[in-house]
Amino acid sequence: MSMDFGFDVISAKEYERQRVLYEPLTAAIRNLIDAGIHTDVDEATAREAQAAVEAVTELLAGKRRTVTTTLRHEDTGRPLAWANPAVGLRNAIAPPMVIHHEDDGRAWSDFSLSGAYEGPPGWVHGGICALVLDHILGEAASDGLTKPKFTGTITLRYLRGTPLGPLRAEAYIDRVEGVKTFARGFLRDADGTTVEAEGVFIQPVWARDAG
Amino acid sequence: MSMDFGFDVISAKEYERQRVLYEPLTAAIRNLIDAGIHTDVDEATAREAQAAVEAVTELLAGKRRTVTTTLRHEDTGRPLAWANPAVGLRNAIAPPMVIHHEDDGRAWSDFSLSGAYEGPPGWVHGGICALVLDHILGEAASDGLTKPKFTGTITLRYLRGTPLGPLRAEAYIDRVEGVKTFARGFLRDADGTTVEAEGVFIQPVWARDAG
Repeated sequence: MSMDFGFDVISAKEYERQRVLYEPLTAAIRNLIDAGIHTDVDEATAREAQAAVEAVTELLAGKRRTVTTTLRHEDTGRPLAWANPAVGLRNAIAPPMVIHHEDDGRAWSDFSLSGAYEGPPGWVHGGICALVLDHILGEAASDGLTKPKFTGTITLRYLRGTPLGPLRAEAYIDRVEGVKTFARGFLRDADGTTVEAEGVFIQPVWARDAG
Repeated sequence: MSMDFGFDVISAKEYERQRVLYEPLTAAIRNLIDAGIHTDVDEATAREAQAAVEAVTELLAGKRRTVTTTLRHEDTGRPLAWANPAVGLRNAIAPPMVIHHEDDGRAWSDFSLSGAYEGPPGWVHGGICALVLDHILGEAASDGLTKPKFTGTITLRYLRGTPLGPLRAEAYIDRVEGVKTFARGFLRDADGTTVEAEGVFIQPVWARDAG
């Protein structure tokens, strides 16, 4: 396992403390995003809501940490990726996906997409399918983000519409050729696969000597 | 122009009223997402913020509209897509991209991606690049979403990392073969192209008779 990113390691206890601290706050912001999309309040109420949101933002911005993406869990060695727009525990944009890693290298996630991810009425935006598939393929290709890998190419094949609601994303490494890792995966609902993906992930030049 | 979606048409005046009503609220929620990612407040402050967010959510949810995705602007005939996670004026998940359509069919957007879209430290998440490119190719392929088209396949080629900050996405129709529209596009920063995309967009069966 390559640990040469210059990440800080966080203890399991500190991880848990921060998770309990921030997860419900992020969940509350996620609900607010949804309420903002669907609200039909009048102008006075909208302005009142806006002022309240601005006040909370000021409260939270009062103490700010510079970086949240460079912490690693002491047990798993995995980056916490708390700011990540697919999996970030602290990013209300993320569904969030919780990623599971199997011993055979498969990565999978069961998650649910709300109306905030809607493209055509009732269906997940095709680009959101691409986001979650790029992420899960990257997780498989990089052994849970422990090995630096960047997306080289990714191809998505949309077999049918992906409905809003509960979904599974899954990915595995198909083969490795030098600095290129070929990953495959899919997105599916209760009735089967909706989108297939294949991607080539590339080890950056700066990480190649580290092996 | 196919208008057989069953969309409601909204007047230019009503569009403007709703835009002024909701755009600043959504912008405020966007800032809150960012503050939530980076805050380092203590537990008491986090709980206070959470309670305040929950109160605003309740306020906004007090009056809720069923659907926001089926309104069309009376002048352009284009769906407003206010809930859309790429362009939605009312969706705080969206950057948002503002899409411009040229007479020659090109679609383009200048927009900026904040730290909320970060994957590797300093770089845009590859899946977010995929989201914005899927969307802009879809805009070009569907003549500004006026013609029903679903993504069939899309391939993204990442030439280099895409930095956070100001970006341009652009797309055009390469060719049309029956129900398949082939679109191409790119994402670029000030130094040139970072990601190339090509996609096949397909007219759904239910829309084929409408021509």
